[in-house]
Parts: sequence; C-alpha cells; structure tokens
Amino acid sequence: MFNFDFYNPTRVLFGADRIADIGQHIPEDARVLITYGGGSAKKYGTLDEVKAAIGDRVTFEFGGIEVNPHLDTLMKAVDIVRENKVDFLLAVGGGSVVDGTKFIAAAALYEGDIWPLWSQRQPLSEALPLGCVMTLPATGSETNHVAVVTNTALGQKSGYSDPLLFPKFAVLDPTKTYTLPVTQVANGVVDAFIHVIEQYLTYPVYGKVQDRFAEGLLLTLIEEGPKALTDPQNYDVRSAITWSATLALNGLIAVGVPQDWATHRIGHQLTALYGIDHAQTLAILLPGLLQVQRESKKQKLLQYAERVWNIQTGDDDARIDAAIAKTREFFELMGLKTQLSAYGQPKTAIDEILDNLERFNMLPMGERQDIDLARAKEILTLSY
Amino acid sequence: MFNFDFYNPTRVLFGADRIADIGQHIPEDARVLITYGGGSAKKYGTLDEVKAAIGDRVTFEFGGIEVNPHLDTLMKAVDIVRENKVDFLLAVGGGSVVDGTKFIAAAALYEGDIWPLWSQRQPLSEALPLGCVMTLPATGSETNHVAVVTNTALGQKSGYSDPLLFPKFAVLDPTKTYTLPVTQVANGVVDAFIHVIEQYLTYPVYGKVQDRFAEGLLLTLIEEGPKALTDPQNYDVRSAITWSATLALNGLIAVGVPQDWATHRIGHQLTALYGIDHAQTLAILLPGLLQVQRESKKQKLLQYAERVWNIQTGDDDARIDAAIAKTREFFELMGLKTQLSAYGQPKTAIDEILDNLERFNMLPMGERQDIDLARAKEILTLSY
Repeated sequence: MFNFDFYNPTRVLFGADRIADIGQHIPEDARVLITYGGGSAKKYGTLDEVKAAIGDRVTFEFGGIEVNPHLDTLMKAVDIVRENKVDFLLAVGGGSVVDGTKFIAAAALYEGDIWPLWSQRQPLSEALPLGCVMTLPATGSETNHVAVVTNTALGQKSGYSDPLLFPKFAVLDPTKTYTLPVTQVANGVVDAFIHVIEQYLTYPVYGKVQDRFAEGLLLTLIEEGPKALTDPQNYDVRSAITWSATLALNGLIAVGVPQDWATHRIGHQLTALYGIDHAQTLAILLPGLLQVQRESKKQKLLQYAERVWNIQTGDDDARIDAAIAKTREFFELMGLKTQLSAYGQPKTAIDEILDNLERFNMLPMGERQDIDLARAKEILTLSY
Repeated sequence: MFNFDFYNPTRVLFGADRIADIGQHIPEDARVLITYGGGSAKKYGTLDEVKAAIGDRVTFEFGGIEVNPHLDTLMKAVDIVRENKVDFLLAVGGGSVVDGTKFIAAAALYEGDIWPLWSQRQPLSEALPLGCVMTLPATGSETNHVAVVTNTALGQKSGYSDPLLFPKFAVLDPTKTYTLPVTQVANGVVDAFIHVIEQYLTYPVYGKVQDRFAEGLLLTLIEEGPKALTDPQNYDVRSAITWSATLALNGLIAVGVPQDWATHRIGHQLTALYGIDHAQTLAILLPGLLQVQRESKKQKLLQYAERVWNIQTGDDDARIDAAIAKTREFFELMGLKTQLSAYGQPKTAIDEILDNLERFNMLPMGERQDIDLARAKEILTLSY
C-alpha cells in the first residue's frame, strides 16, 4: 500500500426530509446564493424546501447552470456574489451544479482572471464556503474537493481540486431522486460504477480493505441499479445507490492504491466532440480498455471476475473474457449502449479523438502510463 | 436504512515515516504537551521522532497514562497544561493514551469539576486541539470523537463523545506496531473485529454498502490477523490491520444501521471486576451472546455465515452454529481464550457481573433492547 493522506471534512446529512436541517449548518447572518440548473429543482419543490430551511437569511438565486458547466455562465454568478456581498453558496442539483458552485466559490474571492490558476491547478488562498443539496447521485462531487469546468472560448474542459472546495455539508435525500428521468438514473449508476473501477482495476498493492470496499460498492450498484429503473420510488434501492455513488468518489477507496482514469480522460473527448453523455462515454470505452489492458491488469481482473461476478471456472483468459462481457452486459442492462457506432458517429471519429488526445498532451495515460497513441487507437477501435 | 449524519474531519497521515509530517499540522507558535503511556514510546525512539518533527515549538511531556486511563492521572496533565499555557496536545501511544488526551483536551478549558459533565454526557463548549501518533491499531480512537475514562474514586468507567474531540490529525505508521508484544497485536485484531460485529450483526435495514464494508473489514482481519502473529515485521500485513482497525470505528460502518454494543457493555464489567484485558472480555462474551441472540439476529447471522465464513451448506441452525464456532475458533487462533473459566475466575463471577449490570442501570441492552437480566445470565452462563 502506498503512503497516503485522507481528509474529508464534509458533513453528510443523509435521508428523507433532511433539507430542513441545513439551517443549522449555515451561519445565522449569512447572505446566501442558491445555485441550481434547469427547472427541476423549482418544478418539484426542492427549491422551496431549501428556501424554507434557510429562513430569513438574505437570499439570492442563480439558475441555469448547464451540464458540463461553462465558465461564462458561472462568471455571471460571480458578479451576483460580488455585487450583493454573498458569503455562502448553496448548490441544489447534481454534479454539474455542485462543480459549478465550487468554481464560483473560488472565483468570487480571486482578483483577476482565475482561469490560468484553475487550468494550471494552482492552489487557492481562499474560497467562499458552500453547501449542497444533491438531487442526482453520480459524481460524488457533493463530498469531495474536485470540480470540472469548461471554458468554451478556449475549448478547454479543466478539472481542478483544492481542499478549500470541500462542501461544508451535503444533503443526500434519496426521495429527491424519484423524479429523475430514467436515463439520468442509469447514467448515474454507471458513472459511479466506473468511478470505482478507475480506482480498483489497476494492479495489486496489498490494498486489502480498499479492494473489499470497492468490490462492495460494485456489488451494490450491480444489485440495486436495475431495481432503480423498474421501481423508481423504492426508498431502500435509491438509498443504497445514493450512498454508493458518494462513497465511490469521496477519496476513501482511492487511498494508498494506484488509479487509472484513462477511461475518463478519453471519455471527456467524446463528450467534447460529440456531446455524448459522460456516463455513456465511459460505457463505450471501458470494455475495450479492459480488453487492451488485460495483461497489465491481469491480477486485478481475475480478482474482479471472482469476487464481483462470481466467475469460478475456466482458465485465466476465459475468466477475464467473462468478466469483461459481464461488465458490458451490465451497462446494456442499464440501458446504455456500449459501442461508439451505436451513437451514430462515423468511423472517422476514432482519428478525431486521437487528435484531441495528442493536441491536449494527454498521452501517455493509465495507472502505469502505458497507454500511448497506439494503445489508445486499439481501445478506440475495439470501442467503435 | 435509518437517516444519519456522517462527519469526520480528522486528517489521516498513513504510512512509514509519516511522523516527520506532523509539523505541518500543528500551529507554528503552539505550546505542545506530548502525552504517552508506559516506556515503549521512549524506548523505541518514537518520542524522539515526534520531538524532532515538532521542532523548536515549546514542548512539555506527560508520561504514565495507564491502560483504561484514570481521572486522577489525567488531572495531573491538566495542571501542567494550565500552568504552562499549553495550547496543543499530542498523544503518542494506543487507544488509552488517545482517550486520556481527549479528556485532558476537554478538562483543561473547563472551569470546575468536569466529571459530572463527562459522566452525564453533556456537550462541551470548547476543547484544546489534539493530534495523535498511533502505535497500537485497535480502538479506532485516533479518528473518532469518543473517549473512555475511569474515575477510580467512584468506581465508574465512563464513555464520552463530543465533536470537539476529533483529533486534528492521526499518524498511522504500521512500522510502529512491529515492536508490540504479540498479545497486544492479537488483542488489537480481536478488538477491531468485534467493533465491526457490534455494528453489523444486528438486524437488516437494507444497509447494503455498510454490510459490504463491514464484511470487508472482517474478512481482512481474519486473513491478516494470524499473519501478524507469525510475521511481525510484514509491512503489508500491518498496514492492512492498521487501516482496518481505524475504519472499524471511525463512524463509517455505523451510519444508518442499528448497533448492539452489549458485548462491550458486559465486557467492561469483566475488566472492572477482574482486570481481564478488554479484547479478552469480548472474546469471552461474543460467542455466548450470539448463541443467546440467534433468533433476533438470525438474518444477519446467516448473511455473516455465508459472506464472511463461506458457509454454504446445512439448514439455518446448522449454518448459524458453524458461524459461531468459526468466530470462536478465530479468537482462539489469535491466542485469546474464549471462556471466562479459562481466566481463573470462579463461577460466582456470573452473579457479580449481573450485580454490576443492575447496579449501573445497564439493562436492558442490545440493538433491540431485549437483553434483560435473564438473558444476560444466559449469556454469562454460556460464556463461563
């Protein structure tokens, strides 16, 4: 196991009707900006619940934060913060709203253009405090200090992290996910699943507990994910998925072990170039990546086959083949297509994606940094 | 799953040679009191490493904190804190030293006699900040806000918790456990194992992730515990045990699920009356408790049998019997005797222990509050 630091000070408020408790965790004299995305937070009454819980604190609103939030949009919120001396941010929505609100928290107290700092991952000296009310379990952003923002002018999607961006609290109310469209639920489950895979399917370093925890999250998502599609108001199922998605990316299973993230890094190009949903890009790429990386991931793939898919028979190659096939079947069962061609892209997409990887200096990648241009091409060819 | 809050702001610094990093997490101008237990922190050089890491901050020392730390001892440290305007505490040792240091942190800023507040579990308004360097993985105290202190004058051992008592940081260096006596290593593994059991073997509430995590910790302790006895300087083994012991009681697997703790509550009487090691008391009591509670714990016992001990055959009763037998065998394999009679106590001990449970108003207990005097007697009779 590698040496590690683990630090996560976000307070989780989990369960039905927990929005009512947020007032205890926001300063009495705070001037609050509520941020949200499309209309669903308003439509389904979540915004009203939030406002009731905030009580008579001075409150402002900023809606319209898009999926893969844009710098331009967020800077408008920064203006509101500055003009109105807002000193607490409250994100209501999914991962994009939380990520966007982390950016606002950083930019509002930064003098000058924050993009160079953000895109070059320099540390912050201060940030506004923020809390969040999650309505879509998927990204884990609600309890981590990471955020991804897109600068459309530069065509650059940039991830950033700073400990100042840990939310003070995160409300996880599984009932708030009942009204999600089925595709978003499915995407969320697959996204969380692949977050775990990125931190688990690498090479063994005697991370016994981390492995067991990762396998526990995968097994839970496999068992509960399909139930969420057919039984959308099952509180138990939604609770298990919500808590799994949070623990998939709160830092816990990442400690002391190697991490891959190549599926994500290539996947981001598919979103940037063709607007394919983030989770869909991962479902397209992961089976091919596991196929191409089967030798360097061999030991963990065999463990994954046995412990997650209960594959007990066959030689090593057969068990790995079966595990990859099971993984693909799970994504398809959740309703996600797992080949790029099924999303209507021509085969020339492969070269476009490779061009992007080169242009943004993203190669080599993977836990051993052994995915070069040739391997990326193999992965994309298998994934087409 | 029950609604829950999860909050744990302690920073973990895990790995070999991490003591050197503590200086970054102690204020530059802090006046530090280093607390420790017997001589081993000094003997094996840990104290010197700690002092080197603290650098030229003004530093005081307080050694001699005993196992099951005493109020009288700790109040001497409180005097040192007050006389010397100490404003940061640094515990170096195992759970007793950390618990004792949490008490010092609370008492030093409290005017008047703190025992009534402590024993009646009233909240603190302030406490000194503390950090810790763990040398014995077992209690989980290093990353939680709980402490147990004994008031010998009153014959009262009292647990307390307050969020102000979370350590600011916890150094977990597996190499620091190499020099532990084999009995302490074994006790630590069994203590951590039963911490997990207290939060896991109750009744199901669809805590899918919590169950998987608990099972992962149990499996790790079962696999790695015996190796630690025969191969004491195996870094991988000690790392897995150290991280398991911390995660067993940092609050994570407790969220949203029922908890038992009857084994601990009865066990404390065996320590108080006969001086039996804490972990030994748990090893004595747990098999009998599971036997007596087999109906109310039936569903989880069957799950435990299958997932932790891989018991696949036999009817329900046979599988539960096998799981209880496997549990006892594990404790014996770790070198702990699992009957009270084996510790040289006469059979009259049973009534003495029952008297204590009544006198301290500890009944009923258990996750369903269904362990009354009659059941406690059954448990003790089976455990004798």
